[in-house]
Amino acid sequence: MSKAFTFTLKKTDPSGARRGVFKTTHSEVETPVFMPVGTQGTVKAMLPEQVSDMGARIVLGNTYHLLLKPGPDIVKAHGGLHKFMNWDGSILTDSGGFQIFSLSGMRKLDDDGVTFRSPIDGALVRLTPERAIDIQQALGSDIAMVLDVCPAADGPKKDIVKAMELSTAWAKRCQDHRSLDTQAVFGIVQGGTHADLRQQHAEQICSLDFNGFAIGGLSVGETNEEMYATLNVTTPHMPTEKPRYLMGVGTPEDLVEGVMRGVDMFDCVLPTRTARTGKLYTHQGEVVIKQSSYREDMNPVDPLCDCYTCRNYTRSYLRHLYTSKEILASILNTTHNLHYFINLMKEIRRAIDEDRFMQYRSEFYALRGKTPPVI
Amino acid sequence: MSKAFTFTLKKTDPSGARRGVFKTTHSEVETPVFMPVGTQGTVKAMLPEQVSDMGARIVLGNTYHLLLKPGPDIVKAHGGLHKFMNWDGSILTDSGGFQIFSLSGMRKLDDDGVTFRSPIDGALVRLTPERAIDIQQALGSDIAMVLDVCPAADGPKKDIVKAMELSTAWAKRCQDHRSLDTQAVFGIVQGGTHADLRQQHAEQICSLDFNGFAIGGLSVGETNEEMYATLNVTTPHMPTEKPRYLMGVGTPEDLVEGVMRGVDMFDCVLPTRTARTGKLYTHQGEVVIKQSSYREDMNPVDPLCDCYTCRNYTRSYLRHLYTSKEILASILNTTHNLHYFINLMKEIRRAIDEDRFMQYRSEFYALRGKTPPVI
Repeated sequence: MSKAFTFTLKKTDPSGARRGVFKTTHSEVETPVFMPVGTQGTVKAMLPEQVSDMGARIVLGNTYHLLLKPGPDIVKAHGGLHKFMNWDGSILTDSGGFQIFSLSGMRKLDDDGVTFRSPIDGALVRLTPERAIDIQQALGSDIAMVLDVCPAADGPKKDIVKAMELSTAWAKRCQDHRSLDTQAVFGIVQGGTHADLRQQHAEQICSLDFNGFAIGGLSVGETNEEMYATLNVTTPHMPTEKPRYLMGVGTPEDLVEGVMRGVDMFDCVLPTRTARTGKLYTHQGEVVIKQSSYREDMNPVDPLCDCYTCRNYTRSYLRHLYTSKEILASILNTTHNLHYFINLMKEIRRAIDEDRFMQYRSEFYALRGKTPPVI
Repeated sequence: MSKAFTFTLKKTDPSGARRGVFKTTHSEVETPVFMPVGTQGTVKAMLPEQVSDMGARIVLGNTYHLLLKPGPDIVKAHGGLHKFMNWDGSILTDSGGFQIFSLSGMRKLDDDGVTFRSPIDGALVRLTPERAIDIQQALGSDIAMVLDVCPAADGPKKDIVKAMELSTAWAKRCQDHRSLDTQAVFGIVQGGTHADLRQQHAEQICSLDFNGFAIGGLSVGETNEEMYATLNVTTPHMPTEKPRYLMGVGTPEDLVEGVMRGVDMFDCVLPTRTARTGKLYTHQGEVVIKQSSYREDMNPVDPLCDCYTCRNYTRSYLRHLYTSKEILASILNTTHNLHYFINLMKEIRRAIDEDRFMQYRSEFYALRGKTPPVI
């Protein structure tokens, strides 16, 4: 376990929501936190200073993508991913497992590791737990993830059990192999949507000496109800004194529900990806900016938002940019959406601090004209 | 002639290069100046603050594009183009003539105006000198251009004479029609590459009471030698006390040569457009960033450049972004190229101030390993 990483749980709300803070070699991060995704060494359409100015102190990097392009050697020659991409906050890198199992057409899994074909040049690439750690150490991220096996969400239970067993063995190998003092490593809990498997794997993985623990294998096609129910039966089996990270999740609703179920960290491509397709998140729900109803709309995207985009531009202008295929559309939309997600977490943290998280949750749904899901 | 616009010629170098300053309702602009192009209400891939931070105090807007999309009414409802695009510096709008004659497949010219088909929705659009002024007044630009007729560069001389005659008549109609005190209007000199026609049209147009005069119909396919030779026989027939604007030009070399021939203002899509194709301008010439030789190149794009991109990123990173089709590639490349063009003009202004423009010109070509063209 890295001594450079510390997590302090400051408060647990009666609802289950937690307030904490973690410290890495590069920054201090208040939790619950949403981490913007910088897949290929850039948070798409953003300068690092813009991401930082919004209040983000940690972003994600994708090992799978950086392994294939430009390759860890080139990143390492820059002095690591921080210098490569000019980001002075923290970086969490995933292990590449999720992408190999979801993106790669051809892959071959064995007990020792996984082999897949690079979609870039067709070359065979081999990833083992040890190599996943080596690559992340070359990238120099603040938090590395163990290599896990991600089974198909709708597959038979025995496949999920098999994936869990291999994931546990690989987690131990990652643990044994790691050697970078400045880098924390997180374990990953799998188990599909099966309550018994989630409990079993949480107990297995969380008995290992990692700096934090992630919940993997969710937001892969199951319903919201299934995801929330799975969280209900997983987080109670995770240690309270270490951060909990729900990987690849999610919508604003998912963040609120995740926090209530004791999750501290989230990441998702949603705000950046949907920004580029003209979908904007607001306190009142979603705005599809290309709609002709915004043609002469002189209002900001979200009247309750004080982001750069909302302070300076009308919906009419944003619609013009989007329908004109201007790059600035992606820039301004991403600025707004990322600010929305980061600010949502800020609002959530304040609500927990002020002992009114459940009230905040009610207001959150009321503004959207929705009723909260059953707990 | 608008009283809101003033031009002060501060110095004329023995070479012919001029130092001046003009003032509009929105800003003071030192000349010679390069004006970044913001075709559709945005300098592509840039936030207005980034353009401003580079030192640009004037940008271009294209009447043709804004007329078709979003339409002058929507821009006017925002309070004008400045507010629409959140730009607090000056804006020069062209009249749309150049685009109608170069972009539109179908167009029909008569003595009163020109009719063309919108490439967006196929609708017939009519532009007359009066309507070109009305649209630019709705956009609220600081400097408007008269509607001119742009003949094919390689057409017969009699077509160019005909276009000149119509352009002169239209310039007078624009002059008679304008009514916005805060907006300057510039006339446009045509005449192809014919010395006699250029002199004749310069004398015609410059006898009219405009705030400044542009040289149109260049950089449309003629050789550099022809362009420079045409400037040699045009600027001497233009008044010294008013700014001279060379429309749609050009390369760094063209800017240096234009300044030497007494031009004060330039605009071109070159720095922004080539940035998006990965071509970067440097003091040493051009860098095509996708080349594999930059794969592990830890140097900045231009070691003599202090732009944001060169201060923070390596060629290796920029190559990675470009080959990964990241939006940040366009952002960082545009930042560099625009800075290069704006800084080039700053260097030129300083050289004129310090009575060493011809020496600067020699060094400019020497750094590129080129010899200056014959004057």
